[in-house]
Amino acid sequence: MTGFVEETTNLLSRTPALLRTLLIGLPEGWTDTPDTADGWRPRDVVGHLITGEQTDWMVRTRRILEHGTSRPFDRFERFAMLERDAGVPLDELVDRFAQLREANMVALRDLVTDADLDRRGLHPSLGEVTLRELLATWAVHDLDHIGQIYAGLAGSHEADVGPWKAYLGILVRREDPSAVAG
Amino acid sequence: MTGFVEETTNLLSRTPALLRTLLIGLPEGWTDTPDTADGWRPRDVVGHLITGEQTDWMVRTRRILEHGTSRPFDRFERFAMLERDAGVPLDELVDRFAQLREANMVALRDLVTDADLDRRGLHPSLGEVTLRELLATWAVHDLDHIGQIYAGLAGSHEADVGPWKAYLGILVRREDPSAVAG
Repeated sequence: MTGFVEETTNLLSRTPALLRTLLIGLPEGWTDTPDTADGWRPRDVVGHLITGEQTDWMVRTRRILEHGTSRPFDRFERFAMLERDAGVPLDELVDRFAQLREANMVALRDLVTDADLDRRGLHPSLGEVTLRELLATWAVHDLDHIGQIYAGLAGSHEADVGPWKAYLGILVRREDPSAVAG
Repeated sequence: MTGFVEETTNLLSRTPALLRTLLIGLPEGWTDTPDTADGWRPRDVVGHLITGEQTDWMVRTRRILEHGTSRPFDRFERFAMLERDAGVPLDELVDRFAQLREANMVALRDLVTDADLDRRGLHPSLGEVTLRELLATWAVHDLDHIGQIYAGLAGSHEADVGPWKAYLGILVRREDPSAVAG
């Protein structure tokens, strides 16, 4: 039986290589489309993940370990990347993210063991949460946003698939989230 | 300006390394959950991608080049993997897929140039389609199904994220596809 911290770290540690494999050197014809009409391009998603590494996950982990529920988390700046990363090439954003994530994985393994998972912090909107919930959310947040990258990549070639669009859920859901592919 | 075949091959060629990076050695706690209640686990998705490499994409490409619209495509067996792959470990399925995809990329580059893209074939339900549409669909089909793997991975840890679930679209959409994350 793998421990929870080890299992969660296992997934989180894969994301740098994953984003490199998916995005580095990929032609712009694939990477310049948002996941939905008012959504995020892959570069915006990677920027959002950078913000998480800088200001959210490990900062909140330390807040729980140092202050418990006596001092709430700061709010997550969900759109910080739009101004901060303007003009930075996507490949460079992927490398920035990778360096931050790799450093955070070292810090997490140093700071947290499974014995800490029930320790509590205070989320500004959600109220009391556990360190276990924070770490699971970190991992699922990766999955959620990488899924968003996939939707943007797919959307870039929507016009090229012709009548097959009806069979491709990732395309039909960009316009109607409740649509079921045929 | 990158040509269409080159741009499409660029994405398709990334999928073997991507699935290896994401899935090989990942603890079963992450990989045993389907994307939706009656959906597919990651192993089912990889099996479905294997079927595509064996019987769909390159077979249809050759059908277009050899027969045009005079002989329709065979139907795609969407559930072939459920019986065929029972008992095969996920890591082995990923390797099988990778070998098939790599061989198909060699075959595609040998057989097709951008000058062939307007050649037509006959889909048994959709009617006339072009080779360009077939190749774009191959790539977007990868993206669609890898997105499905992400939803299964996320779903495996749904109970662990606690109140954060409301913010994680990849989780709320597993139950209600039209739900918008808070």
